[in-house]
Amino acid sequence: MSSESSKTEQFEEINIDELRGEIDQLDKSLVEILAKRAKVTQKVGQYKQQHGLPIYVPSREAALVASLRNYAEEQKVSPALVEDVIRRVMRDSYSTQNKKYNKTNPSERHIVVVGGQGALGQRFVAQFQASGYRVDVVDKDNQSELPDLCVDACLVLMAVPIDVTCQVINSLPELPADCILADITSTKSPSLQAMLAKHSGPVVGLHPMFGPDSAFVKEVIAVCHGRDEKAYDWLLGQLAIWGCVLKEIEAAEHDQLMLYIQTMRHFTSILYGSHLAKESLNLEALVDLSSPIYRLELIMTGRIFAQNPNLYADIIFSSREDAIAMLGRYIDTLKQGIEALEAECKPTFVELFSQGRSWFGEQADEFLKESKHLLLKANDSRLHK
Amino acid sequence: MSSESSKTEQFEEINIDELRGEIDQLDKSLVEILAKRAKVTQKVGQYKQQHGLPIYVPSREAALVASLRNYAEEQKVSPALVEDVIRRVMRDSYSTQNKKYNKTNPSERHIVVVGGQGALGQRFVAQFQASGYRVDVVDKDNQSELPDLCVDACLVLMAVPIDVTCQVINSLPELPADCILADITSTKSPSLQAMLAKHSGPVVGLHPMFGPDSAFVKEVIAVCHGRDEKAYDWLLGQLAIWGCVLKEIEAAEHDQLMLYIQTMRHFTSILYGSHLAKESLNLEALVDLSSPIYRLELIMTGRIFAQNPNLYADIIFSSREDAIAMLGRYIDTLKQGIEALEAECKPTFVELFSQGRSWFGEQADEFLKESKHLLLKANDSRLHK
Repeated sequence: MSSESSKTEQFEEINIDELRGEIDQLDKSLVEILAKRAKVTQKVGQYKQQHGLPIYVPSREAALVASLRNYAEEQKVSPALVEDVIRRVMRDSYSTQNKKYNKTNPSERHIVVVGGQGALGQRFVAQFQASGYRVDVVDKDNQSELPDLCVDACLVLMAVPIDVTCQVINSLPELPADCILADITSTKSPSLQAMLAKHSGPVVGLHPMFGPDSAFVKEVIAVCHGRDEKAYDWLLGQLAIWGCVLKEIEAAEHDQLMLYIQTMRHFTSILYGSHLAKESLNLEALVDLSSPIYRLELIMTGRIFAQNPNLYADIIFSSREDAIAMLGRYIDTLKQGIEALEAECKPTFVELFSQGRSWFGEQADEFLKESKHLLLKANDSRLHK
Repeated sequence: MSSESSKTEQFEEINIDELRGEIDQLDKSLVEILAKRAKVTQKVGQYKQQHGLPIYVPSREAALVASLRNYAEEQKVSPALVEDVIRRVMRDSYSTQNKKYNKTNPSERHIVVVGGQGALGQRFVAQFQASGYRVDVVDKDNQSELPDLCVDACLVLMAVPIDVTCQVINSLPELPADCILADITSTKSPSLQAMLAKHSGPVVGLHPMFGPDSAFVKEVIAVCHGRDEKAYDWLLGQLAIWGCVLKEIEAAEHDQLMLYIQTMRHFTSILYGSHLAKESLNLEALVDLSSPIYRLELIMTGRIFAQNPNLYADIIFSSREDAIAMLGRYIDTLKQGIEALEAECKPTFVELFSQGRSWFGEQADEFLKESKHLLLKANDSRLHK
């Protein structure tokens, strides 16, 4: 009996080295599949370029994800895992599949990017060139060439820093009547007004809601119409081919929203960092002990301080008066919270909470769901000593 | 000639349906590999359980990632893509591979979880049960059983709401001399003092830096030693087997850090939500137009409002006096920023920025790097209408 039972045990014993070998093999196959897939999607990219099709088609991505989730269920593997993996793979294919894009403007006339040596300006120059346009860059060192370069331009794109945008627009030479004048500044009313005053042809204000690191795919560009929409149809079409999602909005409404999306977010994050500094905290201890949520907050705050303070100051100061008023109201609300603490009155605090709850509504539940995924993703790569 | 050239064109033409068919096949193979891998890692989980090995071994994960990055280079596919995919796959295997854990305490004595019906309490109960312990839950409906249940306990774990933790500790019956008394409250000094005063045996304060949704793997638990460390060695060993990362810290230092990690983060987010509500903004427009960074901020703020306001109020009010003072200093710093705006003085604003920059130091650059990856991940699943 005893030899029998020890035999059974031996039989059931798991060979860990063998299992790890199997995992290594499977992981290698996985890498090979990703390599093959990248080759195929590059060809798809070529096809899309030849036929002027956009890289990112939300409905096709959704259909592909849905079908693979079904297949995951069949194969008894987590559909959430498969969805995350395939979306990550598709992101890669968006950014590698197209080195070239279809050109939406058949004309041979060229594009002038004023401020084309800035970080985001450079990216627009590269995207236009990859789409077959001749692009001329005007920046500090060759400003005098501007009048000559504008003579035959089909588009003059303003990509200069926000604090000088209007001034540079005002000093533009006369443009061809059918030339598009456009800008990518962060606030839209002042620059749009300046462009309309300067140029009597087609005018459009654009605000890319992303930074120079982005691959343009799935990113939002706010579009504030100025004059003669039909004339710049090809330009918006070009942005769509790059994978951008265009959102039409009035300049005034755009600027109102940016007071929160940009000004308040930047202002409070910067002052939060300066507050932490004054409190003489130990950053390492803070990171070490942080929850995934707090770690994410520290990352999103800290990232700002790796960047140019003047860019942030310029954006914040560009809506100075509105910002002063709005931030004053924010401080009043913070004080109400502190008063609830001073009065040891939880119901008052809960009442302030309820205001936020009503405003977020059901979206709060959606955000809670999405944040759970994001936090897990953020923790995937957390390094522990 | 013309028939020749049209033949060549035909030859070069890309068959998009064929390519899409290839992609579908590759994606299916990918799902199949993930399914196979999950089966193998389940066996690895069994092995680890039999041999009492921890699920998450940072060095093994790092080695596996490094080796696959190399293989990705060989196969000419993005190492960053392969790393993201494999970390996501490993996260899944951590959470599915172990339904059972090795038990570090050979004794047959049971564990009592006071407040074991709360969200996080339930999770601890389940983890202990999955590790082979007998667990008794005491909550509001069976408080009277507490004295009887404690008679033979090897561990009494306090998992009651923060506002009643000390009170419930004070009302505990006498525990066996060698029984561990531990708690998982968010502030540590008061509960640790109360436990040391109540019980003369082993005492330890724990603070899980994660919520009830977590799978415990890769998550931090703060450990504040109370008395007789050797006696609760098995408990800390058990937490490590679940995959938790233990950080030893003095209770006072812990509480000081939590003033920022919890109190300030919760307070400012809640009041920010209430501010947005008062500003009568259109949430949909805000989401629609948001940059990836602002969208992340909205998600992380909004998620709070899907939860119980009293839990947040309890944590904030538990360090009421320190919070009032610290938040007052934060408002002063915000005011300095507003004064710079009022004075139209960018250098003052840039000076405030520099304070944060000095404090974050090189970590700011690290955070910028990491945030780029996170933002891309956050955008992977963004749905555009």
